[in-house]
Amino acid sequence: MPTNHPLVDGRTTKSALVRAARGEDVPFTPVWFMRQAGRSLPEYRKAREGIAMLDACFTTDLIVEVTMQPVRRHHVDAAIFFSDIVVPIKAVGIDIAIEPGVGPVVAQPFRNRADVDRLRDLTPDDVATVIAAVGGLAQELGETPLIGFVGAPFTIASYLVEGGPSRDHARTKALMLNDPTTWHELLDRIASICSEFLRMQIEAGASAVQLFDSWAGALPAKQYREFAMPHSSKVLAAVADYGVPRIHFGVGTGELLPSMHEAGCDVMGVDFRVPLDEASSRVGRDVPLQGNLDPAVLFADWPVIEQAVRDVLQSAQDLPGHIFNLGHGVLPDTDPEVLTRVTALVHELTN
Amino acid sequence: MPTNHPLVDGRTTKSALVRAARGEDVPFTPVWFMRQAGRSLPEYRKAREGIAMLDACFTTDLIVEVTMQPVRRHHVDAAIFFSDIVVPIKAVGIDIAIEPGVGPVVAQPFRNRADVDRLRDLTPDDVATVIAAVGGLAQELGETPLIGFVGAPFTIASYLVEGGPSRDHARTKALMLNDPTTWHELLDRIASICSEFLRMQIEAGASAVQLFDSWAGALPAKQYREFAMPHSSKVLAAVADYGVPRIHFGVGTGELLPSMHEAGCDVMGVDFRVPLDEASSRVGRDVPLQGNLDPAVLFADWPVIEQAVRDVLQSAQDLPGHIFNLGHGVLPDTDPEVLTRVTALVHELTN
Repeated sequence: MPTNHPLVDGRTTKSALVRAARGEDVPFTPVWFMRQAGRSLPEYRKAREGIAMLDACFTTDLIVEVTMQPVRRHHVDAAIFFSDIVVPIKAVGIDIAIEPGVGPVVAQPFRNRADVDRLRDLTPDDVATVIAAVGGLAQELGETPLIGFVGAPFTIASYLVEGGPSRDHARTKALMLNDPTTWHELLDRIASICSEFLRMQIEAGASAVQLFDSWAGALPAKQYREFAMPHSSKVLAAVADYGVPRIHFGVGTGELLPSMHEAGCDVMGVDFRVPLDEASSRVGRDVPLQGNLDPAVLFADWPVIEQAVRDVLQSAQDLPGHIFNLGHGVLPDTDPEVLTRVTALVHELTN
Repeated sequence: MPTNHPLVDGRTTKSALVRAARGEDVPFTPVWFMRQAGRSLPEYRKAREGIAMLDACFTTDLIVEVTMQPVRRHHVDAAIFFSDIVVPIKAVGIDIAIEPGVGPVVAQPFRNRADVDRLRDLTPDDVATVIAAVGGLAQELGETPLIGFVGAPFTIASYLVEGGPSRDHARTKALMLNDPTTWHELLDRIASICSEFLRMQIEAGASAVQLFDSWAGALPAKQYREFAMPHSSKVLAAVADYGVPRIHFGVGTGELLPSMHEAGCDVMGVDFRVPLDEASSRVGRDVPLQGNLDPAVLFADWPVIEQAVRDVLQSAQDLPGHIFNLGHGVLPDTDPEVLTRVTALVHELTN
């Protein structure tokens, strides 16, 4: 880790987020929200006006501004750098766009062995504008940690193979099962790209990282372990030496929690379907957890939300460390004032 | 049960499906596929040409024809009557349509207490053409059981409240949490309608029934038990006295299996994410199970499919009864010949 890294010079070492992730005592439970930088904020929609998502993700000033917005507004305890899991794939030259209301769309989906070679190594030049933003953010955030992130190889592979979002992942699973050699080569290539991107984020100043495996829950545990986990492990292992807390999260992963922890993370992110105390019994009592308020609950009246926040904190009371978060990303129509209020409530109830 | 019912006159009592559901010895493992009557069959697409989905669901001849198609083609061991979970809601006068590529769309979504009164009781006249088809099918099928079905109140309520399919069920959960009284009244009304519809199906000759709770997996277990389970229990209890096997199924329900079984079913349907032996340990070793080949696996090459079928049968070997099925509905692009082949393989491997 470079000597000007915020964990090395101590700038973020004392932050509640880093301390909770390490199982150390905290002055209060740290809070951040998956997708906190994004559509729920009017200032975000204004900043993004007329700019395509993936263009925004490569524009230094815009990344910095949009990443800072929720920190300023909600007083959350970490920033998550504004990006998308397909950014490193776009960066190595794959024709991919994020279409509003649809999601990532790949011009030429990946279907066979020859397609694997379309994925070249990621170089610093490919993501120079992105990493410049990470560096700028680390400076601007001071004692507040910046969380870096990448998508997990399985989820990225699903987009590449399906050509877009899929509910059933039929083509992905068919490739995986029919041609395991090509499958593993593809995921290994993706894992290399993601590892490199995550390393660059840490070296530029990210104080923690999250590996997002949005679609892992589409796999039974046995298939997850055979076809997805080794590649997620590669990414997590690639940044182990930095000593930066590694958070691992996926949706609908109740069956996969032990395997996802075993893949090599420091903090297990938990979906809203599994109570934190139950998750703790699945991954081991010594593992700090992140989560897990149901984002849909934020649409209820305040007394209901307050009770739900208390329930999450109650379920977290015996954990060695707890990072408060949602159990999935912020929904676009969420009232941002509710997020501010939830942040304050968690701080108030835990200090 | 009327004396001409196929379970009373013994016509289907000896069928592998009914025997497996009752935990009795079977000559071979019975097979059927969720959504077997539908888009994967060219003869279905031909029969449906130019006919809106919900019109088709109220047209006696078409219901009979489409229900019979997979029985003739695949030699499956049960028919599931061609319908949709919103049929009884449409039948009581709610303006609802099934839009291709979208799903059910409700013209005026349900949002408050006053909306509950829009749901009146279901009468035989409302579904006369549908029940005529069930009666005709029971005759035509002879010794092959017809499975009746209804949607579970939670899933139907989600469509009514959201106005259409939803990934996050935010409005549904907000109503549920903000106004539990209205919520329970709404689900109780839906449960009454579904109970009545299921009773009519059984009296017309259905030899087994399935309660489909497509969206139950969106709820943590605690919320499922409080807000959904009592209403599913009401539907299941309403038909308990007939002695017709009751199958209960939902997607992504690994966390909910014990509760869904406790709701009152004879056979637990299992999603593809949880191996059958593991599901058995969750619901009790004495419970027959249905499932659970991943429908996406049907897009792989035959040797892969064959191995996956063997794995399912292997995981079912200690069950008191096993009904082979997919762990979710047949995907529209599935090659129908594969379904025929899977049916034959299961029969061959288990007789």
